[in-house]
Amino acid sequence: MSKILSEEDFKSFVQKIEEQEGYKRPLAFGIARVDKGQENQDKILQASFPLVNWNENFGTFAVFFSVLKKLGADVDFNQSELIFDVDKKFIKKALKKFSPFLSEAKGEKHLNIQVLQHLQNCHEEGKFKLVILFADEDPQSVESVYLKLYALSEQKAPLRSLNLNGAFGLLENVAWSGNTPYELSYLRNNKIKLKLEGKYPNIDFVDKFPRYLQHIIPHESVRILDSAKVRMGAGLANKTTVMPGASYVNFNAGTTGSVMVEGRISSSAVVGEGSDVGGGASILGVLSGTNGNPVSIGKNTLLGANSVTGIPLGDACIVDAGIAVLEGTKITILQKHIKPINEANPNLNLDESKISIVVKGLELGGCNGIHFRQNSTTGTIEASRSKREVKLNEMLHQ
Amino acid sequence: MSKILSEEDFKSFVQKIEEQEGYKRPLAFGIARVDKGQENQDKILQASFPLVNWNENFGTFAVFFSVLKKLGADVDFNQSELIFDVDKKFIKKALKKFSPFLSEAKGEKHLNIQVLQHLQNCHEEGKFKLVILFADEDPQSVESVYLKLYALSEQKAPLRSLNLNGAFGLLENVAWSGNTPYELSYLRNNKIKLKLEGKYPNIDFVDKFPRYLQHIIPHESVRILDSAKVRMGAGLANKTTVMPGASYVNFNAGTTGSVMVEGRISSSAVVGEGSDVGGGASILGVLSGTNGNPVSIGKNTLLGANSVTGIPLGDACIVDAGIAVLEGTKITILQKHIKPINEANPNLNLDESKISIVVKGLELGGCNGIHFRQNSTTGTIEASRSKREVKLNEMLHQ
Amino acid sequence: MSKILSEEDFKSFVQKIEEQEGYKRPLAFGIARVDKGQENQDKILQASFPLVNWNENFGTFAVFFSVLKKLGADVDFNQSELIFDVDKKFIKKALKKFSPFLSEAKGEKHLNIQVLQHLQNCHEEGKFKLVILFADEDPQSVESVYLKLYALSEQKAPLRSLNLNGAFGLLENVAWSGNTPYELSYLRNNKIKLKLEGKYPNIDFVDKFPRYLQHIIPHESVRILDSAKVRMGAGLANKTTVMPGASYVNFNAGTTGSVMVEGRISSSAVVGEGSDVGGGASILGVLSGTNGNPVSIGKNTLLGANSVTGIPLGDACIVDAGIAVLEGTKITILQKHIKPINEANPNLNLDESKISIVVKGLELGGCNGIHFRQNSTTGTIEASRSKREVKLNEMLHQ
Repeated sequence: MSKILSEEDFKSFVQKIEEQEGYKRPLAFGIARVDKGQENQDKILQASFPLVNWNENFGTFAVFFSVLKKLGADVDFNQSELIFDVDKKFIKKALKKFSPFLSEAKGEKHLNIQVLQHLQNCHEEGKFKLVILFADEDPQSVESVYLKLYALSEQKAPLRSLNLNGAFGLLENVAWSGNTPYELSYLRNNKIKLKLEGKYPNIDFVDKFPRYLQHIIPHESVRILDSAKVRMGAGLANKTTVMPGASYVNFNAGTTGSVMVEGRISSSAVVGEGSDVGGGASILGVLSGTNGNPVSIGKNTLLGANSVTGIPLGDACIVDAGIAVLEGTKITILQKHIKPINEANPNLNLDESKISIVVKGLELGGCNGIHFRQNSTTGTIEASRSKREVKLNEMLHQ
Repeated sequence: MSKILSEEDFKSFVQKIEEQEGYKRPLAFGIARVDKGQENQDKILQASFPLVNWNENFGTFAVFFSVLKKLGADVDFNQSELIFDVDKKFIKKALKKFSPFLSEAKGEKHLNIQVLQHLQNCHEEGKFKLVILFADEDPQSVESVYLKLYALSEQKAPLRSLNLNGAFGLLENVAWSGNTPYELSYLRNNKIKLKLEGKYPNIDFVDKFPRYLQHIIPHESVRILDSAKVRMGAGLANKTTVMPGASYVNFNAGTTGSVMVEGRISSSAVVGEGSDVGGGASILGVLSGTNGNPVSIGKNTLLGANSVTGIPLGDACIVDAGIAVLEGTKITILQKHIKPINEANPNLNLDESKISIVVKGLELGGCNGIHFRQNSTTGTIEASRSKREVKLNEMLHQ
Repeated sequence: MSKILSEEDFKSFVQKIEEQEGYKRPLAFGIARVDKGQENQDKILQASFPLVNWNENFGTFAVFFSVLKKLGADVDFNQSELIFDVDKKFIKKALKKFSPFLSEAKGEKHLNIQVLQHLQNCHEEGKFKLVILFADEDPQSVESVYLKLYALSEQKAPLRSLNLNGAFGLLENVAWSGNTPYELSYLRNNKIKLKLEGKYPNIDFVDKFPRYLQHIIPHESVRILDSAKVRMGAGLANKTTVMPGASYVNFNAGTTGSVMVEGRISSSAVVGEGSDVGGGASILGVLSGTNGNPVSIGKNTLLGANSVTGIPLGDACIVDAGIAVLEGTKITILQKHIKPINEANPNLNLDESKISIVVKGLELGGCNGIHFRQNSTTGTIEASRSKREVKLNEMLHQ
C-alpha cells in the first residue's frame, strides 16, 4: 500500500482493513505500562493504561492490526483477548500510518497518537503491552482484568456489566509502596539486607487490587478523603464524596450520581443520584449477606448512620440510624401507611384491608418512598411512607 | 524616622504607629508559603503558615504595616482581610526595624523575627504572602480560610467561633500527594506522559481541605493513628487519641480535653474532657441530621460502640452500644429514675408523679448523667440516671 | 580456645559454653537497627529486627555470649533483659566462630550469620543493638518491647501470652513519615524552617506504636487493604483479609486462622478460623467494655455488620447485624431452642422445663452455635440455636 498522506488516505486505508474477511472490531484495547515481579520477571503485578479505548477508535485499532500483521504477529479474532508486546518497530510503523494527524495530536485530540508519540521517548524493552478484548468473557490475564477495571472506574462500562470471573485468581497479592507493587517473596528474601540498611519500603497496603486513585483521575467535583477507601474498579459519578470515617467502595460498585458516602458500598452495590450513605452505614454485597442479590439504592434515599441494608431500595427511602433491614427482617406496616406505600409503588399490592401487616424485608426490595424505623417505644421494626417525594416514571409519561 | 537601636526605640516606634488615625490592630496575621496551580498559576491551592498571630504580637504588625506603607502598599483597614506579597525588600526593611532583637531570636523567642530570618535564605518570588484579618467576616481568599483553620486547629480560637461561610467555594478541589496539591486538570492533561513514564504521583486523597497533620504539630500526648482521620481545622486537646477504625474528626469539630476517639465527630461537634467516643459511634453534625443544632458532648460521657447521637449531651452520660438517640426518638423514663435525673439537672423539671413518662430526645438535650439504653426484653429505648457522678457547677459555688 | 574449623568443632564449642556455671539459654534475642531521636540522641524511637530468635538458635546465642565476654561485657543472666551495642569487633569476632557455615549462609539457611554478613557492609556506629530476653517480665526498654511485638506479629509467641506491662510508658509518642519516626519536639522546634522551605515531612500518623506492615511481611495470602488498620504487635494468620472500611486490629490481638475482618478487633481479642467480623462490627477489648475479660471468638462464627460483641463466643455462632451483645444484656431463649443449645454446649445446663428463660450475656460467654438476634416484631434480644454445625471435640473422640 502506498503512503498515507491525507485524512482521505487514512479513511480508505481503515476501510480496506475492516473489510478483510474475518476482521472484527474489538470491544476494547489500550497500551499498558506493566510492572513485573522483582523476582519473577514473568509475573505481571500491575498494568497502567494511559488511555482505554472502549467500543471506540476503531480506526486506530485497524492501524494497530495492520502493523501487528506486518510484524508477523498472529492476531486471532476468535480469542476473547490478546496481548502483544509494543516494541520500537511497532511504535514507528504505527506512527507512520498516522502521519496526517501527527501535528494535531495535542490536548484532547488524537489521544492514541499522543500515547505513541510519548512512547517514542520513554520506551523500555518489555514494559509496554497492547491489550485487546474481543469479547467480554472470563479474563485470562492480569492485563485484561486491569482493562476491565479501568472501564468500570472510568465509567465506560456500567457497573456490574462486565465479566470478572476469576479475576482474584489472576491477580498477584502484592505489597504496595506508593505506586510500586512488591512481591511478598521479594521482601521476604531480602528483608535482612533491606532492614539493616534502613531501606525497607514503606508499605501502604497488601492486596491484589490497587486503589482507584492510583489509576483514575476522578471527575472535577469528586472528593475521596482517603485513597484507601476506594478500590480500583469502583465507579464514582461526579459530585460523589467519600469521607474517611467508616466508608468504603469496593470494585464493581459505586455511585451513578452525586452521593455522600460515609459508609460501605460493598462489591456489586450501586447508589443513585442524591442519596446519602450515612456514617458507618453498610450496604451488603453479593459476598456478604444478600444471598447473591446485588443491592441497588435508588435516588434521594438516605441510609442513616450505622444502618445496615441487605435489600435493594428504590427512590426517596429512609433507613433510620442504627437499624438493620435484611431480606428476612419482619417489618410491620400499619394500615394508614399501606395505601401511601402502594401509591408510591404501582407494582406493589400490599393488602390495605388489615389493621397492620407484617412483610419480609425482601418483599419491600426496590420499593420507593419507604421509611424504615424501629419504634422506640415497642422495639418493632416498622415501615411507613417517607416524607420524601417519589417521582414515578409512569407519571412523567402521562 | 531615626534608626531603632534599642527596645525602647522599638516601643516608641510601635506606639507612634498605633496612634496614627485610622490604624487598627488586626484580629490575626501571618506569613504563608503558598502552593500555586501547576496549570493555573493564579490559583492558590494551599497556604502553609509557620506561625499564626491571633490577637497578639501587635508590635510586629505595626512594623509590617510601616514597611508596607513605605513600599507603597495600600493598607485599607476597612477591609475584613488583606493579602500582600512578601518580597525581598519587605523582609530586609522589616528585619531592620527589629534590629534590637535579632540576636535573641532563637528557640521560643521572637518567632516572627525567626520567620523573617529564615525567609532571607529561602525566599522565592511570589511564594510568600502576608495575610491579615481585621474582622471575622466571610473569608474572601484561600489564604484567609487557611489562617482561620490554623487558628481552630492550633486552638487559638475556640471551635465554632469563626466565620467560615463560603470556605468550600473558595478552596480548590485538588489531588494531594504527600504535602503537594495537584490540580486535577493538570493530572488529566498530563496523564499520558506521567503514566507511560511511570511518574504518575501517588495520590493520598482528593479534597478541598488538607489533613490536620499536614499543617499542625499536635500536643505532646495526642495520638492520631491515621492522618486521614482528622481534617485540617479540627481541634484536638492534649491527650486526645484518634484510633484508625471508624473514627473521623471533621474541621471545626474536635475535643476540649482528653478524649478517646474511635468514632465520628462530625463538623461542629465538640467533645469534652474524659469522654469516650466508642468504636463506630457517630456524633451527628450540622450537615447530617441535627436540624442545624451543633452537638456538644460534656465531660466523662461514654458513647458506646456503634451508637448514634443526634442531640447534645451533658456530663457523665452513657449511650449504650448500638443504639441511636436522635432529636425525635421517643424515650421512656420509669418513675424511679425521674427524680435522680431531675437532681442531676437543676434546670430540668420532669414530672415525677407518673409511673413512667415518654420524652423526645431533644427534651433531654444537654442533660447530665443520663444513661440511654434499649431494654433488651421489651425493645423500649429508656433513659435512667447513669451510675457516673455528676459534678454540678451549682454545687461548687454553694 | 582453638579455631573452629568444622561443624563438629562448633558443636563442642557451643556445648562447652552452655555447660558453664550460671549460663542460661535466652527466651529470645536478635540484632536490631534502632532509630534515635533527632534532638535526643539517647532516646530510641524505633527498633527494627531483621530476624527474631524466639526460643531457638541457642548455638548462635552461645557464640554471641562468648564474644560479648571476650569484649569485656557483663552478661548478667539474672536480668530479664539485656542490650549491647553491636560494634565492628563484635561482628568480626562472631563471624570467625561461624567460619564453617559462612559459605552456606544463603536463602533460608543460617539467617543469623546472614545478618552479621550484611552488617559488615552497612554498619554504622551506635545504630545496631543486640537485644536479649532471659525472662518474660515487664519490659524495661523500647528494644525489648519491639522484640515482643515482633514475636506476637510473627506468631512466634501466641497472642496474649507475653508480658507487655508498661509498654506504653516506654515507647515515645512520635510522628511517622514513611518508616521514619520524628520527635514531636523536633518538628516543633524546626517548623518555621521546615515549613518555609517546603520541607515539612508528610506525617502519616502520630503514635507510640508503628504499623504492622512497617515491620512484618505477612503470610502469602494475607491482605491488608490499609496499613493504618493493623498495629504492630497484632497477629494475622494466613488467609486473613483486613478490609479498609471500619476495620482495625490492635496490638496483642488478631486471628488464628483465615478470617474476613471488616470490623474492629480490639486489644486482646482473638478470632478463630473461618469466622467473619462484619463491616463495622466491634469486638470489645479489655480496655473498652469487657470488665477486663479478653474476648475470644471461635471458629466459623459470624459477627454481622455493625454488631457489637462484649462476650466471648464459641464456634458457629451468629450475631445479627446491628445488635449488641454485652455481658449484662438480658437475652431471652424460647423453650424450643434451649435443648439444641444445651446439646451444642456439653458444659451448659440451661433449664429446659420453662416456656422461655432469660439469661445474661455473660452466661452464654464462650458457647457454641448460638444465634443472637433482635426479634423485629417485639424488640426482644433472643438467642436460638444457629443453623451452623458445631463440631464438638468430645464428639471427635467418641
